[in-house]
Amino acid sequence: MFAYNVHHVGIAVNDLDEAIASHTGLYGGEVLYRELIESQGVTEVMIPLGGTSIQLLQPTTEDTPVGRFLAKRGEGLHHIAYAVADIEAALAHLVAEGVELIDVKPRRGGGGHKIAFVHPRAFAGTLIELIEVVE
Amino acid sequence: MFAYNVHHVGIAVNDLDEAIASHTGLYGGEVLYRELIESQGVTEVMIPLGGTSIQLLQPTTEDTPVGRFLAKRGEGLHHIAYAVADIEAALAHLVAEGVELIDVKPRRGGGGHKIAFVHPRAFAGTLIELIEVVE
Repeated sequence: MFAYNVHHVGIAVNDLDEAIASHTGLYGGEVLYRELIESQGVTEVMIPLGGTSIQLLQPTTEDTPVGRFLAKRGEGLHHIAYAVADIEAALAHLVAEGVELIDVKPRRGGGGHKIAFVHPRAFAGTLIELIEVVE
Repeated sequence: MFAYNVHHVGIAVNDLDEAIASHTGLYGGEVLYRELIESQGVTEVMIPLGGTSIQLLQPTTEDTPVGRFLAKRGEGLHHIAYAVADIEAALAHLVAEGVELIDVKPRRGGGGHKIAFVHPRAFAGTLIELIEVVE
């Protein structure tokens, strides 16, 4: 029911190409995939690093969740994604604990995985994503 | 020279005990250590999760880096720490790339490890810590 790993850390950026070049040049890593997620209005890039990954997020327009985040807070750390074995069970556990969810049901995220977001009010102002990896 | 893992993700919190209880109850993990770092004006708690860790940070006073972060931005994601094999070499690499450092020399962090912070301006508004693990 609990998370078994940090799947990735999401960073909101203004310019994906610039951010990729900067990250790989300064800290290393290689791009695993780049994918436009139209339903979320975002293009994401995944850069594996050790046992987790860095995810770079560039919004498609200003009127998207990541676009509004950038307008309000600027570039920077956006969310942390916890890997869970069974996302429905994890969501049921959070609901039983009285936690406020953004997604009450899982939806499809980048890489085809099942994801759901938990409201930042639930834990220390931190936007948390649950992800069940679909192989 | 490059980072080989995400050592931890740092989250600034107002109440460490509440945050520990919330995190372990909602997402799991167990506290590895709790340590007051007087030189940084912070108490840190490390919660391993898979191949990385969640670090909870509570400032000792308002007039500290984490205290000022909380006053300005509220609770939430604070920094990401990259594990490097040789922190002096990593810092030299960043300097050669023209990157602005907060710590030009490593200092002692929690757990006795060697750490240094890189200015958020260097990469997508993201505060990055380098950490050379000292066994």
